[in-house]
Parts: sequence; C-alpha cells; structure tokens
Amino acid sequence: MARAKVYITLKEGILDPQGKTVLRALKSLGYEEVGDVRVGKYMVLELDGDDKARLEERLGEMTERLLANPIIEDYQMEVEI
Amino acid sequence: MARAKVYITLKEGILDPQGKTVLRALKSLGYEEVGDVRVGKYMVLELDGDDKARLEERLGEMTERLLANPIIEDYQMEVEI
Repeated sequence: MARAKVYITLKEGILDPQGKTVLRALKSLGYEEVGDVRVGKYMVLELDGDDKARLEERLGEMTERLLANPIIEDYQMEVEI
Repeated sequence: MARAKVYITLKEGILDPQGKTVLRALKSLGYEEVGDVRVGKYMVLELDGDDKARLEERLGEMTERLLANPIIEDYQMEVEI
C-alpha cells in the first residue's frame, strides 16, 4: 500500500479570486505582512501496489484526466511506498 | 520576503464526501488501485519579513483564525525564507 500526495495550484497569471478574498480577510484582521495568497487543492490517495514508477505514471494520468485541470492548473505529486 | 505553504486536511474520522466522489470517479475510469481519497486545501502565501520563528507564529495564528477550521481540520505549514 502506497500513499500519494497531489498538490494542485492555479497557473501563474490565472486569476485567483478565492486567494484574493483570503488576502483581504487576513489584511482586515491585521496581518499586514501578507503580500499574496493563492489557494489550491491538496489530495491524499491510498494506492494499492509497490512499484513506485508505475504508481507515479498512473497517478500522473489520474491527475491529468480527473484531479486537475491542466489548462489552468499546475500540479506536483509525491508517491511514498 | 518569505513564502509559506499551508496544507489543510480534514481530521481522521470526519466524513469527506468530496474525496468519496473523486474515489468513485477514479474507480469508474478504471483506476482500481485507488483505495481512498481525501481532499484538502493547499495555500501559498507571500509574507513580508525574514524572522522565521515570528512568521511561523503569525502564520499559525492566521491558520487557526481564518484559513482552517481547527474543529474539523488539521494543518501543517512550512515557511521558507
């Protein structure tokens, strides 16, 4: 059994209204040191198998097909056996 | 200028309907090796300052007060100067 983590963020240049809202809220609470906020997704998957290369390949496919929107999002992933 | 990353996940035992939906969708696409999926949030913040301990303390406060819901969510954070 392996555990995989996928981090999905909006690409540079894609507007992030959720991040802007969080930024404004933090400023209004007095956190003036915050310059920018980007909000993304973080997914943790349990995967059956122990061939790390194969799991990474399959996870990349899952991410491209379903988890992320590759047109507007970037992603990074980690598989721990 | 520092960059901070915050990873927010639902606590163990808290139902994750979004994760269950993703799991079902992956299975229906033929990814039978997926055993479980949990969906969380991933935030990247730009912070002004270079006192790492102080930034971590402030970021912990921001996370408890606004970014996460500590009743149902766990979080981890990293500050890179």
